[in-house]
Amino acid sequence: MIPPPLADLAALPLDRATEEPVYRQLYHRVRASVLAGTLSEGMRLPSARSLASQLGLARGTVEAAYEQLAGEGYIVSHGPAGTFVASVPIAPGSIPPAVPPAAGQPDRPAAPLPFQMGLPALDAFPRKLWSRLATRQARALSTATMMAPDPAGIAPLRQAIGRYLAVARGIAAAPAQIIVTAGFQGALGLVSRALLPADTSVWVEEPGYYMTRNGLEAAGLRLVPVPVDEEGLDVAAGIARAPDARLALVSPAHQSPLGTALSLPRRLQLLEWAAARDSWIFEDDYDSEFRYVGRPLPALKSLDTGGRVLYVGSFSKTLFPGLKLGYLVAPPALAPRLAATAELLQPLPAAEIQAILAAFLAEGHFGRHVRRMRQLYARRRAALATALGHTFGPDRVALGAGGMHVLLRMADDEDDVMLARACQAAGLAPTTLSTFYAGEVKRRGLLLSFTNLPVEQAPREVRRLAEVLATAPRP
Amino acid sequence: MIPPPLADLAALPLDRATEEPVYRQLYHRVRASVLAGTLSEGMRLPSARSLASQLGLARGTVEAAYEQLAGEGYIVSHGPAGTFVASVPIAPGSIPPAVPPAAGQPDRPAAPLPFQMGLPALDAFPRKLWSRLATRQARALSTATMMAPDPAGIAPLRQAIGRYLAVARGIAAAPAQIIVTAGFQGALGLVSRALLPADTSVWVEEPGYYMTRNGLEAAGLRLVPVPVDEEGLDVAAGIARAPDARLALVSPAHQSPLGTALSLPRRLQLLEWAAARDSWIFEDDYDSEFRYVGRPLPALKSLDTGGRVLYVGSFSKTLFPGLKLGYLVAPPALAPRLAATAELLQPLPAAEIQAILAAFLAEGHFGRHVRRMRQLYARRRAALATALGHTFGPDRVALGAGGMHVLLRMADDEDDVMLARACQAAGLAPTTLSTFYAGEVKRRGLLLSFTNLPVEQAPREVRRLAEVLATAPRP
Repeated sequence: MIPPPLADLAALPLDRATEEPVYRQLYHRVRASVLAGTLSEGMRLPSARSLASQLGLARGTVEAAYEQLAGEGYIVSHGPAGTFVASVPIAPGSIPPAVPPAAGQPDRPAAPLPFQMGLPALDAFPRKLWSRLATRQARALSTATMMAPDPAGIAPLRQAIGRYLAVARGIAAAPAQIIVTAGFQGALGLVSRALLPADTSVWVEEPGYYMTRNGLEAAGLRLVPVPVDEEGLDVAAGIARAPDARLALVSPAHQSPLGTALSLPRRLQLLEWAAARDSWIFEDDYDSEFRYVGRPLPALKSLDTGGRVLYVGSFSKTLFPGLKLGYLVAPPALAPRLAATAELLQPLPAAEIQAILAAFLAEGHFGRHVRRMRQLYARRRAALATALGHTFGPDRVALGAGGMHVLLRMADDEDDVMLARACQAAGLAPTTLSTFYAGEVKRRGLLLSFTNLPVEQAPREVRRLAEVLATAPRP
Repeated sequence: MIPPPLADLAALPLDRATEEPVYRQLYHRVRASVLAGTLSEGMRLPSARSLASQLGLARGTVEAAYEQLAGEGYIVSHGPAGTFVASVPIAPGSIPPAVPPAAGQPDRPAAPLPFQMGLPALDAFPRKLWSRLATRQARALSTATMMAPDPAGIAPLRQAIGRYLAVARGIAAAPAQIIVTAGFQGALGLVSRALLPADTSVWVEEPGYYMTRNGLEAAGLRLVPVPVDEEGLDVAAGIARAPDARLALVSPAHQSPLGTALSLPRRLQLLEWAAARDSWIFEDDYDSEFRYVGRPLPALKSLDTGGRVLYVGSFSKTLFPGLKLGYLVAPPALAPRLAATAELLQPLPAAEIQAILAAFLAEGHFGRHVRRMRQLYARRRAALATALGHTFGPDRVALGAGGMHVLLRMADDEDDVMLARACQAAGLAPTTLSTFYAGEVKRRGLLLSFTNLPVEQAPREVRRLAEVLATAPRP
């Protein structure tokens, strides 16, 4: 007999028709249940033999899934006593890095490590200016600021975001449509909570940003990986796999991590699908500010005549991630529900911090800062790409038209995770491309951020990287 | 034929054995589905006749539920075209007040209204001191502060909260067990998200805080109202109604809104149930700092040898609600899961604002401020109670041993909601006791906060209240 939560696990059919191997499907299902809490700490899992027989699988298939789960800390084997749900699931996708930290290393360094992703140039942030605005705000602490703020965000901030979006992204959004969020992950939490019951199917990009995938899994949703090709998300493949998905998560401007832009035909096809199915599109516009070749494409949201797109922006990559502020632009009919959900289950940060950001935007500092960073990043990007090209050969370096990182390609038989661990031990923090795949890893490589790498240091850090890669143990 | 989400609605049995009338059960079920988004905007509801026949109810029962839902804005009737899920659900429990604002009144006033609940004395807050700490923090903006903060909260704040809890509430909590949250509602969101799958049964106090109830409903949980008597939550009644609930939500120090303390036998009974069932207790210690008679009872958490209690505190009532900061003390085994869920789906406010609070606590300002407020509130409470006693008679005034409000009792045939609306039109903001009931309203009255009512103004505002109540239209 299998106890109830595990019986549920065993009862769900695995899909043999997809490209995702059956062991990966099983791995994902168990992992999602652990993250969602359905499988809770200390619960005994059935033996691989017994579960294999329940599911009609080969024992080795279940063993492969268990092995991966154990390797990632979701379950523990106590030998003959059995296999149990682990007490401390690894915080999925902790930043940095995308591989768990090596022993003896702090997992949250106090300064950026070379190549570390997800950070803007902290050395170039106008700290004095920010501090001046914060000081002014601190001195002006008002009764209104002390009372419960509008759950959708303070009015001056929503107005300033609306003005920025109109100019920079071609999005016409009334302040009433704009909901301030606790960064990108806060927007993901709010949308999943307010609009998507558990077990709803959601399209995610394959490969795609692992924090998005982990967040949606933790929200109890059913993830449908949809492949990305040279035109971006393969909408037809999504429709073939899960036409009834309620949400499609895309990064149209600059796909994360491959850097491709979603083509116009695909954009229209995606909007058409969403309109026909009453489904939502979650547009992750995470780094559209940084583009070095040609003009940025307008946001998908700017084409959204049917009101199906939830547009998400964040200040983590333009200002600093510790600010934890971002925003959603919602179709007008959804905004009140999102605000009500925020008030009840995930209130916004203090009005004080919102007010500092509002002043930074309204007084024009934000626009100036982004322009300065675009120029700085163009120089740092070129320096890193040049150094990588010299050392590894230009064929191994992939540069998108935008973004905050460069890809160093690896052969299919290289283990990028093991190599990244060796880098980490040496104080370098590349991110592995394989981490972005939910299913079979199709491309391997190291994603290397240039934002915090001064031009003159690029050759030295690339040499260090090359040394680590040359001497790292290989399987 | 009833479409799928409505079929689910109709398929669930209504419980004829409880005290809650069947129409209220149906009302709650539809309301929860609208808030959870299962019933979405524009969806057509079955006619009262057809739903009544599906459910085996009298048509009048369904009509009563529909009437209440329409009155509260969850559904709209378009005459012969049918009844539909409304496009804009009323933000449930918007603060203030507990009744929707009258036309022409702003729903978020910029200063406290007389009697408005949920606010500490904003006139007595040490703004200059707070501003000084905020200014110091603004000048010290560090690289570490700019990077992604620990998803459970910055270390200095967790340490300071731990020291405070040990001294003030008898709780021994390591910093690793403390998770900083976006206030009380943020804690509720995090716990429901990380530990409670949709449709899980949860005990809530009846009567109980409506924002808690609305939050749990919005999280898709199944609420089981458990009556409160003179010893607090009736644990035996909870066990009789839903022994398998996964969480019990209680306010043991000072029940919200009745003000009773949970007796020791009930505390032990509750802990025993949770241990036997592997269920959780969510301890809402919302205003334990303010007690004017006798000594505060230790927190339920201080008795929690089995690790079943999630203790929640907030700085909204001790400092100011706009700060939107609170904390959870979790059993050690749960803390990593809560932190992982926070990182993925509802990140914490900026380290900047956490650091200001940490300094306020660590430098002893918090302890001093709470002591000063306790003395101030004792005077304001006495002044309000005296004025109410003179005007309405002492029998109608109910004073608990603690808290931030006084109850003005009303007869069972008075409509406290209608009277509160009349008060609101006159610029007064009492809260209705009936709002705290999920089922049948057993006691009626107005909850009147004294925190922002200076001693010398109490007689005048009570006279205004009496005038409004005397002249308000009655049904």
